[in-house]
Amino acid sequence: MSFNIIRVARVIMNVTDLDKARDFYVNALGMVETEADDTHLYLRGLEEHVHHCLVLKKAEQPGVHAIGYKVYKERDLEALAALFEEKGLPVKWIEAGSQRAMGKILRVQDISGIPLEFFYEMETVERYLQRYDLYRGARIQRIDHVNCFVPDVQKAYDFYVNELGFRCSEYTATDDDQIWAAWLYRKPNVHDQAFMNGAGPRLHHIGLWVSDPMSIIHGCDVLASMGYTQAIERGPGRHGLSNAFFLYLRDPDGNRIEIYTGDYLTSDPDFKPIRWSLNDPRRQTFWGHQAPDSWFNEATPFLDIHTGEPVRLSEAVLEKHKPDILV
Amino acid sequence: MSFNIIRVARVIMNVTDLDKARDFYVNALGMVETEADDTHLYLRGLEEHVHHCLVLKKAEQPGVHAIGYKVYKERDLEALAALFEEKGLPVKWIEAGSQRAMGKILRVQDISGIPLEFFYEMETVERYLQRYDLYRGARIQRIDHVNCFVPDVQKAYDFYVNELGFRCSEYTATDDDQIWAAWLYRKPNVHDQAFMNGAGPRLHHIGLWVSDPMSIIHGCDVLASMGYTQAIERGPGRHGLSNAFFLYLRDPDGNRIEIYTGDYLTSDPDFKPIRWSLNDPRRQTFWGHQAPDSWFNEATPFLDIHTGEPVRLSEAVLEKHKPDILV
Amino acid sequence: MSFNIIRVARVIMNVTDLDKARDFYVNALGMVETEADDTHLYLRGLEEHVHHCLVLKKAEQPGVHAIGYKVYKERDLEALAALFEEKGLPVKWIEAGSQRAMGKILRVQDISGIPLEFFYEMETVERYLQRYDLYRGARIQRIDHVNCFVPDVQKAYDFYVNELGFRCSEYTATDDDQIWAAWLYRKPNVHDQAFMNGAGPRLHHIGLWVSDPMSIIHGCDVLASMGYTQAIERGPGRHGLSNAFFLYLRDPDGNRIEIYTGDYLTSDPDFKPIRWSLNDPRRQTFWGHQAPDSWFNEATPFLDIHTGEPVRLSEAVLEKHKPDILV
Amino acid sequence: MSFNIIRVARVIMNVTDLDKARDFYVNALGMVETEADDTHLYLRGLEEHVHHCLVLKKAEQPGVHAIGYKVYKERDLEALAALFEEKGLPVKWIEAGSQRAMGKILRVQDISGIPLEFFYEMETVERYLQRYDLYRGARIQRIDHVNCFVPDVQKAYDFYVNELGFRCSEYTATDDDQIWAAWLYRKPNVHDQAFMNGAGPRLHHIGLWVSDPMSIIHGCDVLASMGYTQAIERGPGRHGLSNAFFLYLRDPDGNRIEIYTGDYLTSDPDFKPIRWSLNDPRRQTFWGHQAPDSWFNEATPFLDIHTGEPVRLSEAVLEKHKPDILV
Repeated sequence: MSFNIIRVARVIMNVTDLDKARDFYVNALGMVETEADDTHLYLRGLEEHVHHCLVLKKAEQPGVHAIGYKVYKERDLEALAALFEEKGLPVKWIEAGSQRAMGKILRVQDISGIPLEFFYEMETVERYLQRYDLYRGARIQRIDHVNCFVPDVQKAYDFYVNELGFRCSEYTATDDDQIWAAWLYRKPNVHDQAFMNGAGPRLHHIGLWVSDPMSIIHGCDVLASMGYTQAIERGPGRHGLSNAFFLYLRDPDGNRIEIYTGDYLTSDPDFKPIRWSLNDPRRQTFWGHQAPDSWFNEATPFLDIHTGEPVRLSEAVLEKHKPDILV
Repeated sequence: MSFNIIRVARVIMNVTDLDKARDFYVNALGMVETEADDTHLYLRGLEEHVHHCLVLKKAEQPGVHAIGYKVYKERDLEALAALFEEKGLPVKWIEAGSQRAMGKILRVQDISGIPLEFFYEMETVERYLQRYDLYRGARIQRIDHVNCFVPDVQKAYDFYVNELGFRCSEYTATDDDQIWAAWLYRKPNVHDQAFMNGAGPRLHHIGLWVSDPMSIIHGCDVLASMGYTQAIERGPGRHGLSNAFFLYLRDPDGNRIEIYTGDYLTSDPDFKPIRWSLNDPRRQTFWGHQAPDSWFNEATPFLDIHTGEPVRLSEAVLEKHKPDILV
Repeated sequence: MSFNIIRVARVIMNVTDLDKARDFYVNALGMVETEADDTHLYLRGLEEHVHHCLVLKKAEQPGVHAIGYKVYKERDLEALAALFEEKGLPVKWIEAGSQRAMGKILRVQDISGIPLEFFYEMETVERYLQRYDLYRGARIQRIDHVNCFVPDVQKAYDFYVNELGFRCSEYTATDDDQIWAAWLYRKPNVHDQAFMNGAGPRLHHIGLWVSDPMSIIHGCDVLASMGYTQAIERGPGRHGLSNAFFLYLRDPDGNRIEIYTGDYLTSDPDFKPIRWSLNDPRRQTFWGHQAPDSWFNEATPFLDIHTGEPVRLSEAVLEKHKPDILV
Repeated sequence: MSFNIIRVARVIMNVTDLDKARDFYVNALGMVETEADDTHLYLRGLEEHVHHCLVLKKAEQPGVHAIGYKVYKERDLEALAALFEEKGLPVKWIEAGSQRAMGKILRVQDISGIPLEFFYEMETVERYLQRYDLYRGARIQRIDHVNCFVPDVQKAYDFYVNELGFRCSEYTATDDDQIWAAWLYRKPNVHDQAFMNGAGPRLHHIGLWVSDPMSIIHGCDVLASMGYTQAIERGPGRHGLSNAFFLYLRDPDGNRIEIYTGDYLTSDPDFKPIRWSLNDPRRQTFWGHQAPDSWFNEATPFLDIHTGEPVRLSEAVLEKHKPDILV
């Protein structure tokens, strides 16, 4: 039974203070607030015609409830449920309308324990792509990808590629050819989903798309003007892997956001995944800059889809170290 | 029998002087010359891993031999041949290796008489995406789309959407709701193939992708430095329809090229095509600029796949006029 | 008796509706509103530490009260008054404090009848250069220059260069070597003051500086979003003369504004003025675009410093035509 | 006796390998090679109408022969010689023609021991500002400033401001109000000459101007493509002090170059110097990034104008430490 996963389409994540989160995501990053209530903030990018791509939920502790993928049709949900059940993985149905703006949702936990969800229906709203008068800050256009620490990248890779139908654009390998990190996609750019070797599962970052590098430069300037210099963790810079121009931020709760633009089209079936050596100085930042320790060590826990408790972490199977960039 | 068309992937087009063409496409636009012989110039964009996206063929007269679409697998060719034969449309097989760098090709003429081809195999080459030291001029990254005049846009639309599986992102309608132009895609951005109402079939332009607006601004500066002010026909500007930042050029033989960046993701099945009124001043150029008469009137003929003679033109079924922008 | 003119520093100009003007200059162009009363709007650019560079005055009819130059010291005003009196040109003193935020002002009419003023003192305010959170629209940084139609450019040139100590960066000459237009400066970029051959004196435009071309592109997008497509008269484009990236706008009263960036340093005493032929297609727009008729014909009247009535126009001494760009 | 210093206009500096230097400055940074001989490479920026702004001289050891200032007229040289002689500082005349492309030169050592020179005449050449077809790499437009470590910034400040007629745009002060660094100018942008507290005199960097931030981003990409990741020492980023967008590089001999754009106009006599606290995290990089230790410690020696030997260093009078950025 086959299915068609379209793209990563939303993330539901805890924050401790909705007003602080609003100031960061709306005023500084330029996301659009579709609506809010006492415990939720629903945000979208400027080009998005759907209700939201990010749900921030007020809570005492950080945690990610689910990474949401849009599928083509309702029947894809059934096919996906059958797959996860067959693998003995947790499955939970959420009825249409029980979450704001959403149709029926299939929530599962993947082979690494990451809470995923699949849905085919979300309310649509006015797209602000050409409301340039409303552009502010970093001018976020849409969600692009998520990146997760998992203890066994090879296992996650096999599940996503062989079972879920993702394709690989680029990957990082150790000297003895073990996959240390992988960039996987359904929509044809570099990724919807990346995995990196580390204690996990944990959410490393949510990648948000902007239209050009100057939006990132201006975003930094606005962040600094508003007193958010502490939020800037890494970059701006050019990635070797993906070729994207990027910036990594930490939101007021420490959740990591990447602002991202300028990768490339991966639609061709004969496009061969690009291999990077773990210790290539241009892999992380094409210009040679090293990432800070926090970028390698800190991440957000996932929450169990049944209990709501943090998903238990496992140690990485490959040596978990900051790449050793010898020059 | 189903098939999977990936994207528009190459155009084969006549030019009268290969050296002049090289100066324009390589030195001014920054395309990469993969190889050349006495009668052909094979060009690709900086991010392309395939041998070429543009074949310029030395000839006495202008003309387009084919618009080439990449398909997923060899068997898609059979399925497509069956469809075209069933419709009584011209079909021709070109064996693998008989065209430089190409596997087996299915060449056909579509419902409007446009010569198309489908293939699943092209030689791959080194990708220059991160050879920034080789970037020059407008820094063309890849082919993005083609746009054709056809006499009956509704008929072309129906064939591409209902028979070939394209989807529509945006369209222009007359006051009485007839489709005057349509933007259709397989890869999920605004288009692979656009049709506009006009005497046809004729190729209006080939759209080439760049990564950001400053590549277009710099491209104009380089063109002017090299004496190509006459080549700049329209723009740079922002399209209303598609939101792309654009520039239209005429190559030394008068063939029209669009440099294009900054449209948006159209992957969602529930994305509703955007309707533009023919007389909306922001449709063509969001900033209100009108296109020159040449842009509405001039185009390149297509060549019959069997005879090589220009495909006979039919007059447009809708009134063929330059939109009347009242202010 | 010598004096030191620093730079063009403000313009006082009529508008018919202050709210419409505010929407255009503040919301769309991104100028900072320092203060306003029932009949005045005081605006400055983001980098300016002074109270204003543009005073918009509510009035029934368009008209420019004065082009204001900042001088080094109070005694420069005396020296300038002596010069204008010696030449038999109109002179008027305005006491410190009688205009909002201003010290003592010397107002005069120059050899072409243009109302100028000289001052050395204006209140200073907080500079918003690094308040990126307040940036909007075209992000105007500061006033850069003014451009005026005068009937006899040679006469104006001689007065500004020989009497007022301006230097010439570039000029346009007819085939028989008469000066058709001239770009003159005190601060060392291309100009504070330009003169073009035409019925005059009239103000052709006020040039406002931005920091980079993307501010102009974004400015166009914001203008279009807000319904100001009619305001965009010419550009964006690259000037041949000056090398600046530019955009010409008409404010709600038809006054012309240029958004301008990217000329060059003219500090060297041995920099030789650059001569452009009137009919060089790259002179106006380096990319070959022609300016519209309105750009050649329409301008704002100046007002007499004593009577407040429009200064009487004289016909141009050189043939006043739109350059004939033969291609 | 007064004089008029126009701007910093050239630097003469040793390199050990002219071919390596050419690859870095011409191919990667995009400077124009005006001419070269066996022991000299004469480079200029794209907008410069003069023969060079940088002379690289083949030598065994690093060292800076002189920082060159252009003056208004020949008689300014006499006035300057008188000043330096009166102060008991070293003075040396170099006859016109004895250095390539140069008129008469006055070479001196300033109050900190820095070798300066003053000249009013340099050969002019074709300006390449509008030869966009020749733009490459970081597209250097012109020399903008130099920055030097000196042991006593207050003493250097007093000499340049009170004796040489420089003005101060911005400065860094310790908590007890001692000047730790100062930005001084003759041409009206942020600086021609900066001084920082440190063992000196040593040349910290030469600042080269580009027209916009994207030239710096592209410059980084080109440097990385060519294998120069090691050359990128700090940035790109936005300075708090000066507001410039910047990048610091080390040339193949370790000499430091800053690529710089986007400061502001400082022409007004009433512009008040901006004070920054030494420990303000946004002072160095507006976005909060810290500079690496090398940036604080390493610099190029100056050479004595008479002996050619390295000028002896003195320790800094203020505590010489990397600012302590507490957050």
